[in-house]
Amino acid sequence: MEEILLSHGSGGKLTQNLIDEIFIKELDNEILRSKNDAAILDLEGERLAFTTDSFVINPIFFPGGNIGELAVCGTVNDLATSGAIPKYLSLSLIIEEGLPITELKQVIKSVSETAKKAGVKIVTGDTKVVAKGEADKLYINTTGVGSLSTKLNISADRAKPGDMILVNGNLGEHGIAVLSERKGLEFETIVKSDTAPLSGLVSDILEVTDQVKVLRDPTRGGLATTLNEIAEASQVGIKLQEDKLPISETVEAASQMLGLDPLYLANEGKLIVIVPEEEVEDVLEAMQKSEYGVKSAIIGQVTADEPGRVVLENNFGASRVLDMLTGEMLPRIC
Amino acid sequence: MEEILLSHGSGGKLTQNLIDEIFIKELDNEILRSKNDAAILDLEGERLAFTTDSFVINPIFFPGGNIGELAVCGTVNDLATSGAIPKYLSLSLIIEEGLPITELKQVIKSVSETAKKAGVKIVTGDTKVVAKGEADKLYINTTGVGSLSTKLNISADRAKPGDMILVNGNLGEHGIAVLSERKGLEFETIVKSDTAPLSGLVSDILEVTDQVKVLRDPTRGGLATTLNEIAEASQVGIKLQEDKLPISETVEAASQMLGLDPLYLANEGKLIVIVPEEEVEDVLEAMQKSEYGVKSAIIGQVTADEPGRVVLENNFGASRVLDMLTGEMLPRIC
Repeated sequence: MEEILLSHGSGGKLTQNLIDEIFIKELDNEILRSKNDAAILDLEGERLAFTTDSFVINPIFFPGGNIGELAVCGTVNDLATSGAIPKYLSLSLIIEEGLPITELKQVIKSVSETAKKAGVKIVTGDTKVVAKGEADKLYINTTGVGSLSTKLNISADRAKPGDMILVNGNLGEHGIAVLSERKGLEFETIVKSDTAPLSGLVSDILEVTDQVKVLRDPTRGGLATTLNEIAEASQVGIKLQEDKLPISETVEAASQMLGLDPLYLANEGKLIVIVPEEEVEDVLEAMQKSEYGVKSAIIGQVTADEPGRVVLENNFGASRVLDMLTGEMLPRIC
Repeated sequence: MEEILLSHGSGGKLTQNLIDEIFIKELDNEILRSKNDAAILDLEGERLAFTTDSFVINPIFFPGGNIGELAVCGTVNDLATSGAIPKYLSLSLIIEEGLPITELKQVIKSVSETAKKAGVKIVTGDTKVVAKGEADKLYINTTGVGSLSTKLNISADRAKPGDMILVNGNLGEHGIAVLSERKGLEFETIVKSDTAPLSGLVSDILEVTDQVKVLRDPTRGGLATTLNEIAEASQVGIKLQEDKLPISETVEAASQMLGLDPLYLANEGKLIVIVPEEEVEDVLEAMQKSEYGVKSAIIGQVTADEPGRVVLENNFGASRVLDMLTGEMLPRIC
């Protein structure tokens, strides 16, 4: 490892190496080491969730959304998946000189509308401008603070054999939507990004159970990479049922055409939920009633076999291992 | 205003226009409207300070510091100037493909050392990688959370006629240090950036008085621009004594050579303090005893004349108006 490669930003294995070998090694503390999407802070006796994300998506406008909506949803969702109620966001822009003001206004309007929908306020910000060729149109950082009930204990290392795994809808749509816009591809149906704030869905789940083990949004690296992170953090196996995975025909066809695996495609507005087996029916029902959970499904189960591994089983009983993403499939997907 | 210009990122008038006409208009809420460097949040009855900054400085290594040290100090200082005790930072990187890993390690080492010095923990992070030509080496966002005593009420709109204005040391050093590195200039003495965490200095001040009106770090746009912001927010005049302004001979000479005004040059690790007249001697003494305040000086006074104006008076009684920075003096200075 001598210089930074695009794949260091993939969200997969090389990103993990970078985090472990440089960031955690140098900046080590207990909170950082837990490696959840949001840090849990103790501030004057209150528990807060705190998370950050920089968005470098290309193009900044895509079917179903834009970088502003994405930047709000991404951070809101990282708070929500820690079990917190998202409250406040910061908004920091790096703008490439020459960006049309109308585009900036459109992005900020989306930020505003999405923040309202998610129930958060943008309370502080920063703007930097760099010369042409020193950025690509617009990069956005949002960092968020949420309040966390002391009853909850949701973390990637809490999955236990027997727990059930759910997801709230179709996989791979964000990846295909962005890619089709970028490459000027047209499919039979337009695939729209599934960008959405998940705070409402999470609170609907937490209303029926306080036993949720893991919540995670499978963005960069897709479902397969996120489940690998959970399998490793919890030291459990994960078994998925191929025929239960919700993937639309268009995404399936587009992925085949492009030689991509939808299980590694980036999602937005998607939630992986892991709960004890006895809670799964209540949780599924609550999810299916929620605005962004209509297509929710049980997709697999946590096992004691092969700790750290994610295995996909098809209808004929054949299975294959789903590894973590290596290399970079689609740079600048979020 | 049709497209974004470099000067929209100067920290001066055009940045203010952008904030007022696009960000505040669209994202409006009471906290954002206060336009302080840190937002003051009320979360479950606790008062928190919350602030964000993206750092795009060029070059990423400069005499006296690097982008990592700067990114920690900048956000720590925005928390400290709100009167808060800085506690937690997030760290989000946008890396240009090809950055040598040794340089990344060096930057993260600085982040770690500076965080320790400032008494904050890096608790969450994010890494994105973009292709060559889509960024310039490394951009860093840090966002910080601090805890705030309920006794304090420090804000840019609290200056009153009669209040005294202090600064903790020499002006313009960061600007000249970065510029000399960028242009390969050599001066008689090497000018080093004054990057420093100000949390200790602020707590030393708050130990002698809880009557501090305004604390502000004059970074982009320099002393003149920051004082203009305060004059406008408080609707007061500000009168500075030219012979009291601490400027080193080297910075003075370098500025003249380059045709720059040190009062508009970016500072780091500098603090503007505004206190009631009866407190000023105690505050000055406390500042001069503090690690980063040895060269502290009283530089001027708040007046009732000409609200919104900053006036510089020389020894002969002549005066000139110091306007807010217009245009961009030194892009990517922080």
